[in-house]
Amino acid sequence: MTKTAKNILFIMYDQLRFDYLSCAGHPHLHTPNFDRVAALGVRFSRAYVQSPICGSSRMCFYTGRYAQSHGAEWNGFPLRVGEKTLGDHLRQAGMDCWLIGKTHMRADLEGMQRLGVDPDSIIGVRTAECGFDVWVRDDGMVPEGPDGSYDGRVSPYNEWLKQQGYPGDNPWSQYANSGIRDGQIAPAWLMENADRQANIREQDSETPWLTDRALEFLDEQAASDANPWCAHLSYIKPHWPYIAPAPYHDMYGPNHVPAPLRHPCELDNPHPVFAEFAMSSIGKSFQRDETRKKVIPAYMGLIKQCDDQLGRVLDHLEATGQMDSTMIVLTSDHGDYLGDHWMGEKMFMHDASVKIPLIIYDPSSRADGTRGSTCDELVESIDLAATFVEAAGGEVPTHWIEGRSLQPFLHGETPEAWREFAISEYNYSLTTAAARLGVSDEDARLFMVADKRWKLVHFEGGFRPMLFDLKTDPEEFTDLGSSPDHADVIAKMYGYLGQWGRRQSQRGTRSAADLARMRGASRSRGIVLGAYDENDIDADLIAKYTGPAKADYRS
Amino acid sequence: MTKTAKNILFIMYDQLRFDYLSCAGHPHLHTPNFDRVAALGVRFSRAYVQSPICGSSRMCFYTGRYAQSHGAEWNGFPLRVGEKTLGDHLRQAGMDCWLIGKTHMRADLEGMQRLGVDPDSIIGVRTAECGFDVWVRDDGMVPEGPDGSYDGRVSPYNEWLKQQGYPGDNPWSQYANSGIRDGQIAPAWLMENADRQANIREQDSETPWLTDRALEFLDEQAASDANPWCAHLSYIKPHWPYIAPAPYHDMYGPNHVPAPLRHPCELDNPHPVFAEFAMSSIGKSFQRDETRKKVIPAYMGLIKQCDDQLGRVLDHLEATGQMDSTMIVLTSDHGDYLGDHWMGEKMFMHDASVKIPLIIYDPSSRADGTRGSTCDELVESIDLAATFVEAAGGEVPTHWIEGRSLQPFLHGETPEAWREFAISEYNYSLTTAAARLGVSDEDARLFMVADKRWKLVHFEGGFRPMLFDLKTDPEEFTDLGSSPDHADVIAKMYGYLGQWGRRQSQRGTRSAADLARMRGASRSRGIVLGAYDENDIDADLIAKYTGPAKADYRS
Repeated sequence: MTKTAKNILFIMYDQLRFDYLSCAGHPHLHTPNFDRVAALGVRFSRAYVQSPICGSSRMCFYTGRYAQSHGAEWNGFPLRVGEKTLGDHLRQAGMDCWLIGKTHMRADLEGMQRLGVDPDSIIGVRTAECGFDVWVRDDGMVPEGPDGSYDGRVSPYNEWLKQQGYPGDNPWSQYANSGIRDGQIAPAWLMENADRQANIREQDSETPWLTDRALEFLDEQAASDANPWCAHLSYIKPHWPYIAPAPYHDMYGPNHVPAPLRHPCELDNPHPVFAEFAMSSIGKSFQRDETRKKVIPAYMGLIKQCDDQLGRVLDHLEATGQMDSTMIVLTSDHGDYLGDHWMGEKMFMHDASVKIPLIIYDPSSRADGTRGSTCDELVESIDLAATFVEAAGGEVPTHWIEGRSLQPFLHGETPEAWREFAISEYNYSLTTAAARLGVSDEDARLFMVADKRWKLVHFEGGFRPMLFDLKTDPEEFTDLGSSPDHADVIAKMYGYLGQWGRRQSQRGTRSAADLARMRGASRSRGIVLGAYDENDIDADLIAKYTGPAKADYRS
Repeated sequence: MTKTAKNILFIMYDQLRFDYLSCAGHPHLHTPNFDRVAALGVRFSRAYVQSPICGSSRMCFYTGRYAQSHGAEWNGFPLRVGEKTLGDHLRQAGMDCWLIGKTHMRADLEGMQRLGVDPDSIIGVRTAECGFDVWVRDDGMVPEGPDGSYDGRVSPYNEWLKQQGYPGDNPWSQYANSGIRDGQIAPAWLMENADRQANIREQDSETPWLTDRALEFLDEQAASDANPWCAHLSYIKPHWPYIAPAPYHDMYGPNHVPAPLRHPCELDNPHPVFAEFAMSSIGKSFQRDETRKKVIPAYMGLIKQCDDQLGRVLDHLEATGQMDSTMIVLTSDHGDYLGDHWMGEKMFMHDASVKIPLIIYDPSSRADGTRGSTCDELVESIDLAATFVEAAGGEVPTHWIEGRSLQPFLHGETPEAWREFAISEYNYSLTTAAARLGVSDEDARLFMVADKRWKLVHFEGGFRPMLFDLKTDPEEFTDLGSSPDHADVIAKMYGYLGQWGRRQSQRGTRSAADLARMRGASRSRGIVLGAYDENDIDADLIAKYTGPAKADYRS
């Protein structure tokens, strides 16, 4: 019997670098469970996110559309009411779409009110939750400052911690994301504390907690007569605050920290926008050796914990006989500079930030020929929405979803005219860097356009571009953006960017099938153009307009 | 006392060329009422529509957004639910927004159903009617062919004609838009009939009928305690079918028909897309002298009728003392080739098609210095939405409306950094030309980018561009698109087009004020990035994360 995927387990980590997995070549970090999925599936080596920041990147994943198309260009930009999501498309194909974890979705409450969408109706809840049915939503971020709470939502994880007896209002902050020093809370927000043991039982920490919720979901679905489902299991880790519970807090040490991927030439006459980012407080922190020596082992420990918890999920699927019917996807919303290129965080266009791990296991027999292989084609995060719709048996709505199904690569086929370039965008208008650079909201935006050889970064506001030769300089040290010898390359990359900018991204009310149906149809519905007399037109097209004049109204 | 506009009368004609008015220099057509408004206001000599086809162009006017931004790129493409319209913006500023006539709006019924918008609710009706409250809607197009009716809507005008005793099911077709020949209906769809007298009493024809509705509207508003209003008085004429009632049918004759603006060099090695359009049946018809000699006098007669009816409106405003409180706008949704450039209809990028008449009378005292003047700056149809919001006392929502207020030009001020280029788009994927050229839906699109000197037309699908020098060749005869001497100009125009393609057009859920409020705010809500230790951070920003550890959960 031919096996096919019935369900989709769409697992996302947050801020997981593409190269911090053993299957991707990390020298010290051993991730046997990621590798186990890679051995069963295809690992994509050139997968880019459409925006290297959580909220915007995720809206791209969840809509299958570029950030410029859906407009949610930064954290906290609500996804506009009426944007179609994975949930809309999958449900149309008969597949449920569930959320277990983080989305970073902000509801467009103003738009919902304007259109009279009741927030308590099913339509309203799904609209507010980015199209998902919520098994559990926890964005994994419960910071608080002098002006109050960052998120404002109740965190189910935090509430659960309180039920387990963790004291205080915010055990997420004071236990899961803090250690102890001299009897005092040692918050992981201060990176000197990253090497401490998180003050939480390992099984109570965020990654196992969410895994438990996922296993409950799997059991409940298996026990019911449920529709096929896509479940978005979406972890907050290894996202900062960087601190790990035992035993992960001391599995790795400074001797496992790779040398930073940076070169003094990067700071020699640097691009002004890059320089502003690198010289931000986070950049300067990660330029310090002690930051990297504390943070990176914690980051690795958190990934190791993710791997172990992934093992629990895989074991559960195997034990319940679901491996043959479940497509498994492992990916991340963006990377983490970790000091590479003199930078911290993400939000710029080097591979450390914009490239993601992407591993897809398709249980279908048609994928048997590609198991354990690597695909080096240019892949975008928006391709997953198309892939999932196709896996659900639907037809990809190309008038909404801008990504393309990866199924051909999973099935060892060569897709027709695969993309020649990948795009990523970052809107930094809300950062203090924009203010320091003195650029307007409109100009505080940058775009990456990359083919397999070159990566160009375009900046609005009159700055020169940056250019990297990914073949001769895979480390992206040498910025050729002002090299006269590369004018032709730069022109070619701008040609790609221009082509992308002219795309149709808002034709959502007319599908390709609609167009085929409509083409030329107005003529047979009475629009007779170009006819001078009856010799120019078929009789049936003019028939409605002829006959005896029954009355003469000419004065 | 300083006068200001209380109300806005936004009058649109359909397919009215920019140069078929005496105030715009037409040698034979005398339009004293258009000229009367021009003498009171500002006439814009470089006003472009964002798409030279009714439906798409109108959606640009009514949203203040480019066609690529709202996605309604052809007739019959529904305006996506959630797109904000003039009505949304004006009502927010306390001004009602009424429709009297045509919009060409197609409701996004699928989107409304998806979001649970009740079509019978006020929200639903406004969503379906492009944001307008409907005084009367009549799209002025009731054709019928072997496959049925083009529009499908009930035409109030047609119903009214029946009430007046006009026989048959479709007096719009058989009387208003037909003459008589040998006792038979002589439909104006056959252009040989364009010189006949329409078989209708003049006062019953479309333009006076709609004017009567407008005068009723004015009276009712004046008699009530109504809010300030914007009324879109939107005529179908002088749009085809070309035929005029007496006395307009024979006011002009072949001797008033200007020579066609065309040159044999245009057909010498022509651009393949242009050639396909010019060699369509409508193009070939208008290449025949007899077509122009029949059609153009009828077209002029219809405009003359529009002018007389405009006179009734102006007289009514004067008689009721409303001229001092009513902004009056005269414009069109696109032009008409009428045989220029070997073409008929519109839907291409020469001035005959893409340039529109635009006259704005602002009763405000601040406009006294500009009365009777001409403005030669680059103006786009999307600017009207911004102009109206400003006239209504609102703040232009730049995160929705892409046009800019024309008020500075009306008030004799110099706006800051006015646009350097204008854009127009045309999606021809639904035409038979696309099939003949063998281009895909995605590639069947063309873009105009024009500054005051140059006009470049870009074609998707690998074609070369067209380029015209508007200074040395204002007739647009000489296509320089393949001229090596103009490579720099072409590059510059592509630079503009690229800049336009990268704009933010979908940031509707975040206003400029939102951005200002949000900038840097996450830090004081607990997102502490870049701090290695307490020396790197203000104490208040880390205060929430400190204190005694109440319990030790480290195993």
